[in-house]
Amino acid sequence: MVIPLAKKEEDFGEWYIETCDKAQLCDKRYPIKGMNVWTPYGWRIMRDIDAAIRREMERTEHDEVCFPLLIPETEFKKEKDHIKGFDEEVYWVTHAGLNPLDVRLVLRPTSETAMYPMFSLWVRSHADLPLKTFQIVNTFRYETKQTRAFMRVREIHFFESHTCHEDKADAERQIAEDVDIVDAICKEICIPYSLLIRTDWDKFPGAVYTVGIDTVMPNGRTLQIGSAHYYGTNFSKPYEIAYETEEGVHAYAHQTTLGMTERLLGAVIGVHADDEGLVLPPAIAPVQIVIVPIFKKDNEDRVMDFCRTLEDVLKKNGIRAKLDDSDARPGAKFFEWEVKGVPLRFEVGGRDIDNGVVSFARRDNGEKGTISSDSVVEGARMMFKVIAKDMLAKAAAKQEGYIDDLDTMEGLESIPEGRMCRFGWCGNPECGHTFEDKYDIKILGTPYCPVKWSGRCIVCGKDGAKPVIAARTM
Amino acid sequence: MVIPLAKKEEDFGEWYIETCDKAQLCDKRYPIKGMNVWTPYGWRIMRDIDAAIRREMERTEHDEVCFPLLIPETEFKKEKDHIKGFDEEVYWVTHAGLNPLDVRLVLRPTSETAMYPMFSLWVRSHADLPLKTFQIVNTFRYETKQTRAFMRVREIHFFESHTCHEDKADAERQIAEDVDIVDAICKEICIPYSLLIRTDWDKFPGAVYTVGIDTVMPNGRTLQIGSAHYYGTNFSKPYEIAYETEEGVHAYAHQTTLGMTERLLGAVIGVHADDEGLVLPPAIAPVQIVIVPIFKKDNEDRVMDFCRTLEDVLKKNGIRAKLDDSDARPGAKFFEWEVKGVPLRFEVGGRDIDNGVVSFARRDNGEKGTISSDSVVEGARMMFKVIAKDMLAKAAAKQEGYIDDLDTMEGLESIPEGRMCRFGWCGNPECGHTFEDKYDIKILGTPYCPVKWSGRCIVCGKDGAKPVIAARTM
Repeated sequence: MVIPLAKKEEDFGEWYIETCDKAQLCDKRYPIKGMNVWTPYGWRIMRDIDAAIRREMERTEHDEVCFPLLIPETEFKKEKDHIKGFDEEVYWVTHAGLNPLDVRLVLRPTSETAMYPMFSLWVRSHADLPLKTFQIVNTFRYETKQTRAFMRVREIHFFESHTCHEDKADAERQIAEDVDIVDAICKEICIPYSLLIRTDWDKFPGAVYTVGIDTVMPNGRTLQIGSAHYYGTNFSKPYEIAYETEEGVHAYAHQTTLGMTERLLGAVIGVHADDEGLVLPPAIAPVQIVIVPIFKKDNEDRVMDFCRTLEDVLKKNGIRAKLDDSDARPGAKFFEWEVKGVPLRFEVGGRDIDNGVVSFARRDNGEKGTISSDSVVEGARMMFKVIAKDMLAKAAAKQEGYIDDLDTMEGLESIPEGRMCRFGWCGNPECGHTFEDKYDIKILGTPYCPVKWSGRCIVCGKDGAKPVIAARTM
Repeated sequence: MVIPLAKKEEDFGEWYIETCDKAQLCDKRYPIKGMNVWTPYGWRIMRDIDAAIRREMERTEHDEVCFPLLIPETEFKKEKDHIKGFDEEVYWVTHAGLNPLDVRLVLRPTSETAMYPMFSLWVRSHADLPLKTFQIVNTFRYETKQTRAFMRVREIHFFESHTCHEDKADAERQIAEDVDIVDAICKEICIPYSLLIRTDWDKFPGAVYTVGIDTVMPNGRTLQIGSAHYYGTNFSKPYEIAYETEEGVHAYAHQTTLGMTERLLGAVIGVHADDEGLVLPPAIAPVQIVIVPIFKKDNEDRVMDFCRTLEDVLKKNGIRAKLDDSDARPGAKFFEWEVKGVPLRFEVGGRDIDNGVVSFARRDNGEKGTISSDSVVEGARMMFKVIAKDMLAKAAAKQEGYIDDLDTMEGLESIPEGRMCRFGWCGNPECGHTFEDKYDIKILGTPYCPVKWSGRCIVCGKDGAKPVIAARTM
């Protein structure tokens, strides 16, 4: 009996699991729940995403560092809100060899408390600022909720940038730069996103404010794919990250962070994959073009020679091309590479060669056509751009459609599953909690980028409210 | 008062510490001893070494994976010798959040016991073999000896390849391939090495045999920079890594591993750096060429324009060039980039431009000269090759000089500090221990590559002995 596979539109949760499995992105059978094995294909995509992040970090002159995983309990507990936020979800190392440790060590859930004792040594004078660093490392959180590959795991592949600045203005310029960075990365992975300043009760433990970076899954639930934080001097005071100003005055640094995780990959799967399998953005596809030779007995050598040259030319020009010269039939090859999400398939038969063209098929929309063999490199590069643009536009249009504008709570029994809403909020926590509790939904926040909007608070009716988005989250 | 810096030839230990510090390779002030912070320059070099490793892994078709850091105690204890070898040097996670865990988790000291439960699921048939995987991750050992940056640390940056094969012959072909891999990597980092089959009492816990990869420090002590192991079926039996042969018979896989660590960087520092600072092999230098403009007021624009174009041309051709356009004087720039170990310095003045040349200075031997501006890319590439070859040859010649051949133990009171020795050993552990105990020195092993040699055991006098190397280790 063949069990039919789940459909994306019908059962997103099950479809997501099956899609990860059939594309062999990770192995969830490791004997600790929520700690998955990165198998070669999934890890390669993640490393391509990391490469996109590193390009942005280099462009914006952040230095890559790598801090120790373990943090002494004494350092970890210096910032009160921070430890409260993480107390229940960290792993503790208590023994080394056969003996108990004098000071317990925590596995970093994020690296503020590892980095900031060192920043305190590195930052002495205004000339040391701004300090801009980042790392890509493994972090750990003891999740008690249901785990899900790449979206909610206990060992997390994590990117975090940490910066120190002279004052609030410079720190906020950094947040603005972070927005550019996020935009560039999300363009590469073709993921639409919104930037929302989180409510005070939902901000990062220790932050002055948090900008959440959210995308939307096909079930209408949002997935936070990252966040930027302004810390003010909340950490610099307890960790003594201070500097001498140009005027010789002792001052505390203002800090920011930007963090993103393997959820970027989870977002790519959830947003772009379809019932046939993955659909990968060209920038992060381990194989960008698969070449499938179509031959009969009498022209096999000719077709194969052409395909080998084609692969070679593409590779020499920095395109990740792969000639599938296995014994499988073309149809079986098509199927396999569709599951893997390869953005572009080139088919080459005798007639194509005669006509001086290469036939192509796009993974994202199935479109077929031919490009001239003479300009195959330029043609491929142009198609990558078109594919990326189309993937992003399609996803953006879809995500906008999940949002309903609410003018009033009257007559509204519930927010339907799969819908998000936008409405006015005066900013009073009481009104916010009232809304969240009534509809069992989360206020994601107010737009980071200023918007023209005027209206009343949906709860208390006060004028001058700000627009907020509320949604259920993954 | 200026404290004179240590000299490499006089006090290697102190010189090593100072050299790491002044080149800013890591920060040892992190509040856990032996867990250092990778600062930008050191981390960049390490990542360049990793890139060299990845190129070799790709060439030899190993798949990159990434396994969880934590291993349940139950899995960790399946292979008896292995756990005995690591019992006293692993870190234990015993609590998550506020609660004790049901099963304690170990921080991987190496990943056999994390990977092999999964290999047992991945390997089913002879068609799944050989399985060739690798990862580059952080590992942990609770060192009780004195720690030293990059050489003996508690969080270790670690490369490990793990393979499964049908039989011993195929596994040993893998070890032979590993030798090629090691050779290629060591060529890139210009490090001479020897391959010695370790004594039975010094092999990896769980291995049938271990091939140690050693280099020699200027104090005559050896540094193990890696090792390859043949496991036979020692792990595949307890972990049930079994397959069906072509004949339908159930058989256990034969396994191998190859491991190398950040000691590769430690070796580069120890072998190549000098009293002025680092000397980096071109393949792993973050900056391969620094361009220093030499101008007067009347030709500043002309010189700077030329230098900018030069930097641009080099970069476009994949050479990591950096124009130092800071306000410092040329002499200060020379000094700074010497400390950082940049292999090649280009100096460009008005006269050089007139003559159509670029002046260069090699970091490794101080040699100076000019190359034609018309062929500066080819010239630089050729010089990288020459520099790498010369660095390796110089180090190899030096290392060979540390070894004394011993014919007899008679009259020998001790092996002098800073000397290694080569002599015959019958292979009997009793003779081996006698030698090691008498001279307080370690037998590193017998050559992995067959050598023509005949002689007697230096202890018992039996004929047909094999040559072994003994040395003090870092």
